[in-house]
Amino acid sequence: MPKVLVTGFEPFDGEAVNPAFEAMQALNGKTIKGYEVIGKGLPVVFGESRELLKKWLDEVEPDIVISVGLAGGRYAISVERVAINIDDARIPDNKGRQPVDEVINPSGPAAYWSKLPIKAIVKEIREAGIPAEVSQTAGTYVCNHIFYGLMDYLAQKPGVRGGFIHIPFIPAQVADKLQQPSLHLDDIIRGLEIAIAATITYEKDIVEAGGTVS
Amino acid sequence: MPKVLVTGFEPFDGEAVNPAFEAMQALNGKTIKGYEVIGKGLPVVFGESRELLKKWLDEVEPDIVISVGLAGGRYAISVERVAINIDDARIPDNKGRQPVDEVINPSGPAAYWSKLPIKAIVKEIREAGIPAEVSQTAGTYVCNHIFYGLMDYLAQKPGVRGGFIHIPFIPAQVADKLQQPSLHLDDIIRGLEIAIAATITYEKDIVEAGGTVS
Amino acid sequence: MPKVLVTGFEPFDGEAVNPAFEAMQALNGKTIKGYEVIGKGLPVVFGESRELLKKWLDEVEPDIVISVGLAGGRYAISVERVAINIDDARIPDNKGRQPVDEVINPSGPAAYWSKLPIKAIVKEIREAGIPAEVSQTAGTYVCNHIFYGLMDYLAQKPGVRGGFIHIPFIPAQVADKLQQPSLHLDDIIRGLEIAIAATITYEKDIVEAGGTVS
Amino acid sequence: MPKVLVTGFEPFDGEAVNPAFEAMQALNGKTIKGYEVIGKGLPVVFGESRELLKKWLDEVEPDIVISVGLAGGRYAISVERVAINIDDARIPDNKGRQPVDEVINPSGPAAYWSKLPIKAIVKEIREAGIPAEVSQTAGTYVCNHIFYGLMDYLAQKPGVRGGFIHIPFIPAQVADKLQQPSLHLDDIIRGLEIAIAATITYEKDIVEAGGTVS
Repeated sequence: MPKVLVTGFEPFDGEAVNPAFEAMQALNGKTIKGYEVIGKGLPVVFGESRELLKKWLDEVEPDIVISVGLAGGRYAISVERVAINIDDARIPDNKGRQPVDEVINPSGPAAYWSKLPIKAIVKEIREAGIPAEVSQTAGTYVCNHIFYGLMDYLAQKPGVRGGFIHIPFIPAQVADKLQQPSLHLDDIIRGLEIAIAATITYEKDIVEAGGTVS
Repeated sequence: MPKVLVTGFEPFDGEAVNPAFEAMQALNGKTIKGYEVIGKGLPVVFGESRELLKKWLDEVEPDIVISVGLAGGRYAISVERVAINIDDARIPDNKGRQPVDEVINPSGPAAYWSKLPIKAIVKEIREAGIPAEVSQTAGTYVCNHIFYGLMDYLAQKPGVRGGFIHIPFIPAQVADKLQQPSLHLDDIIRGLEIAIAATITYEKDIVEAGGTVS
Repeated sequence: MPKVLVTGFEPFDGEAVNPAFEAMQALNGKTIKGYEVIGKGLPVVFGESRELLKKWLDEVEPDIVISVGLAGGRYAISVERVAINIDDARIPDNKGRQPVDEVINPSGPAAYWSKLPIKAIVKEIREAGIPAEVSQTAGTYVCNHIFYGLMDYLAQKPGVRGGFIHIPFIPAQVADKLQQPSLHLDDIIRGLEIAIAATITYEKDIVEAGGTVS
Repeated sequence: MPKVLVTGFEPFDGEAVNPAFEAMQALNGKTIKGYEVIGKGLPVVFGESRELLKKWLDEVEPDIVISVGLAGGRYAISVERVAINIDDARIPDNKGRQPVDEVINPSGPAAYWSKLPIKAIVKEIREAGIPAEVSQTAGTYVCNHIFYGLMDYLAQKPGVRGGFIHIPFIPAQVADKLQQPSLHLDDIIRGLEIAIAATITYEKDIVEAGGTVS
């Protein structure tokens, strides 16, 4: 059976849970459109996360890879368009590392495009009544780090498609914060299922405006 | 059996659904802590909504009343503290009426306090992992209109407690909007159940800061 | 010469400056439409601020009073519509007092309306190219405390008009904060001058929608 | 005398003015640290703007180039880190063109880094009391288009440094909009002067965290 690898980060920045990890666990073992979903965790640590990702990729040999990370403060499921070759951490990672303006791969390009059908994914998640958007930046923290690392790896595997999706806080994480958006874990899981299904369906992305004005 | 009247507004401003109405319907018929919940709809129309509310109040003879309305753009279930004696509509209501700076009740006070235990409600909803806050303004549209109308009525009924709760958009309403917060309907319904239970439990509100800095 | 009393609060919440105080000082001594502007400072302290305000009112015997306070996080000059009879402090004041749900004046009404021509003020400030809005809540901290105290005093002085205006941060206060709106001090001062002039011009407010949808 | 070319876009999206254009005009003719500033306008049109930019570059032969564009909705002067090789327009440009997911330069890399000392610029603008930030995305509209086009050109001119800076709305543009941040034109102009001076001073950028958490 063809395989989808979904990775989810462990909690960080003092949070007790990471919905990316919860969603990954919920998806692990499912079958979507004839593809087996295999979920794996990743630490919020520069370097180590990337090494572990490579281990999972070699072990699982997936046909599709979707890495999932939390972007607290976002309103919608954010399908990332581009990974950039830089680490610039505003806070230390889970092992205390805080790289500033360091290149991820000195011999890699400045950026990689996602190989997911990002417009099709956004369209189908929205049609299911769940907020979604194309995002033009995955940041410069461990999420972008793993996204770049993934695309670096996939650059050597032309048959494998993959990319990165950011998700909002879940309600429990913002229950006593003011003015912070959140999304129910069920909607996040359903959104990711739709993303997987859309990736299987659309070998080529649809043409639909998803950009910005500025 | 003692009774809780929950009112929910019909859709307005071009929206296909109103989660306040959906939540009201979901709560209708439930029994919470020995109280029967009776749900009734209200039109988003100045004047008529208030008359219909009075009809429901006379008919149902509730012990507790919670009116629920949509406040698109809010992040949390907002338990309103105060109703003010003014209509000032930024857009026309569902019958095309747009009062500007008109007094609701010429012989009424400038404002009424909610008779709900607003701090206890916020605390208990948050403890259930759902975002909640005390709100210092219910606006100046039909929501505040009905809130003021309710408190005007309850001023004559010392034994009956009541107030107003604003809820955010649900995800389907913001699926293709950018930067708009939402809350899952299940969380809204659960939050309102907790609000009803807390109102039954706390005849007197708890003392807990819920104000602002400014 | 008729007189306008402008009050401005001292810095609080760890900020080095308070633009309300700076603006008050800049306006002090000006003549606007034949009115002399007299500026006075107020401490961010529950109770004491109100006593000092009464002292200034008795001393100055103004025809118009505009109290000005900082509302960090707001985008526009906010002309407040209503003062409510409650103190509910989320953080302690400059003397460590943190009243929670305490009535300001046990024998006063739940709320007072501003006696400023709030719609005319907003319209004229906007026409000068400066962002302005009617606000339905002055919060529950020392700003609302002084607003309520002022209106309580003016309830005994039918000939004197007054109210409260909230202003945003100035740029220097948000220079290294992320996602915080600000307004240049010159625009704040000019906006307040326009507010004073409009109050002199419009004994009666104009009818113009300035409310909310919710 | 060495030269700094500053470009500013013309108005678009129905706005009467573009503060980027106003700021460019204000800077035109100034001398900063021994450099002459030459300001030039650019149309908000895909393709044409890039051709005109090349014309200005060939004509002026600048040592430093800073392109400036409006990003309505942003809170701070945003020094862009990276230009990406894609046009994806949410609205048509001033000539009705709306490219969706089209590559800017088919033979160019996925992305170019800014050649400005972005961290030094942000640090110095903040120290002057003006809000500034590093931005990880210049969007996918004409601003990113010109930024990419500029860096494409500068890739052939190793001695010339340049990049892109986004600026917020000015107050007059948001005077009657709700909840929209703005920055005074004087602060924008001063911020850009500081950016020019910092670019002259810092041939190499400083190391200072300016990234994200996500």
